[in-house]
Amino acid sequence: MLKYPDLDSLFRALADPTRRALVERLSHAPATVGELARPFDMSLAAIMQHLQLLEGAGIVATEKLGRVRTCRLEPGSMDTLAAWIEARRHPSERKLDRLA
Amino acid sequence: MLKYPDLDSLFRALADPTRRALVERLSHAPATVGELARPFDMSLAAIMQHLQLLEGAGIVATEKLGRVRTCRLEPGSMDTLAAWIEARRHPSERKLDRLA
Repeated sequence: MLKYPDLDSLFRALADPTRRALVERLSHAPATVGELARPFDMSLAAIMQHLQLLEGAGIVATEKLGRVRTCRLEPGSMDTLAAWIEARRHPSERKLDRLA
Repeated sequence: MLKYPDLDSLFRALADPTRRALVERLSHAPATVGELARPFDMSLAAIMQHLQLLEGAGIVATEKLGRVRTCRLEPGSMDTLAAWIEARRHPSERKLDRLA
């Protein structure tokens, strides 16, 4: 059986609409915490908490330059999830994929 | 933007190792609740609770015939997750996929 790095925290991190919206935004390009927070009706502290959870799960990486923290998606983190899901799809779907 | 059926409950349902193990087992073939419970050091009631959560998220379907409840994976439920993840992967990875 394949070993997957902490699937619990990956799935848990994405089980929240704000965190998924942050990931969606970062899937286009890196952004500062301020830029990420702008569209949300939420305190900067709350956004930071969501980002910390995404960082802890290995989905987002952040870097601080002076007073500005920039966030980006961590390449490969989604692969783990995609591989687990693909291996667990309904057998008939996998069969159809092979025929296609 | 694509609309996804309740991603919160899909991700939350899979953020637990017991529930992922149940999905793994069902990805091979349907099984009764008793068969599913056997490998776990857990009460039948606890397994039933996990199954109810998976059923609520639309991942598992169950059917009762007489006294026996049989569970199977719900075809298509994983597609929703796979599509969301694929669309949010790191841009450089998507570019590589297109080149391949």
